[in-house]
Amino acid sequence: MLDKAASFARAKRSARAGRPKVDPWNPSCPSREIIALIASKWVCLLMPLLRQGSRRNSDLMRGIPGISQKMLTQTLRILEANRLIARHDFKEIPPRVEYRLTALGASLCDILTSLDGWVIDHYYDMSDARRPRDAALSHRGLT
Amino acid sequence: MLDKAASFARAKRSARAGRPKVDPWNPSCPSREIIALIASKWVCLLMPLLRQGSRRNSDLMRGIPGISQKMLTQTLRILEANRLIARHDFKEIPPRVEYRLTALGASLCDILTSLDGWVIDHYYDMSDARRPRDAALSHRGLT
Repeated sequence: MLDKAASFARAKRSARAGRPKVDPWNPSCPSREIIALIASKWVCLLMPLLRQGSRRNSDLMRGIPGISQKMLTQTLRILEANRLIARHDFKEIPPRVEYRLTALGASLCDILTSLDGWVIDHYYDMSDARRPRDAALSHRGLT
Repeated sequence: MLDKAASFARAKRSARAGRPKVDPWNPSCPSREIIALIASKWVCLLMPLLRQGSRRNSDLMRGIPGISQKMLTQTLRILEANRLIARHDFKEIPPRVEYRLTALGASLCDILTSLDGWVIDHYYDMSDARRPRDAALSHRGLT
């Protein structure tokens, strides 16, 4: 087990060797945009739904009421392009396509699930601070 | 210590008593919009800067190169309205105002710091999946 971890760490160091340091506080580092992709309401709602197993598009639409088909498709494509989820087309008729977390996605999903859990646990601690008017202002991003 | 935790849990249950269940997967629950406020690139970059202690506006502008003054002010106001940071005006001339994490903000900040750390650790795992053209597409949200 320790050997496995050590070999993983070695592989990791070698994957990074000679590459620029990742620093999202540096505005020219593309990792800042990766944070923008991941730190999104729809990603925080979608990825935890895949923890229980593969899901079809229609399952996800039902699981996140209020999301549009366009936004769901866009979110799924971004997650797939970044290796966080995998898309499996069963090549059946009628078509059957399922999405599941990759190992990389599962490790991120743990953190996003903590974030959702934190909001559920502390929602009233935050909202007690606000009068209804303030709350409405914040919801609109103070514009 | 255990007594303290038990009394905290009691206070928490009483704060929630008789209130609607918090469920961000329910589109009419305002907690979904709280996730949208917190899961933001600027919040993920700003809050961890306050972990080391109070910071002035100018410190934060320097700490997050690329953020506009307008966006920084807006982000600070949202965090303050939600009790995640506290603003202290020293009422001095020239003016001196500092921001610090509240206890509530510090507990959220632990999760956001994990998220930033995850991106730093796994950036190359994600980006290896993409050709430069795909990466650019993802950065623009596939529009």
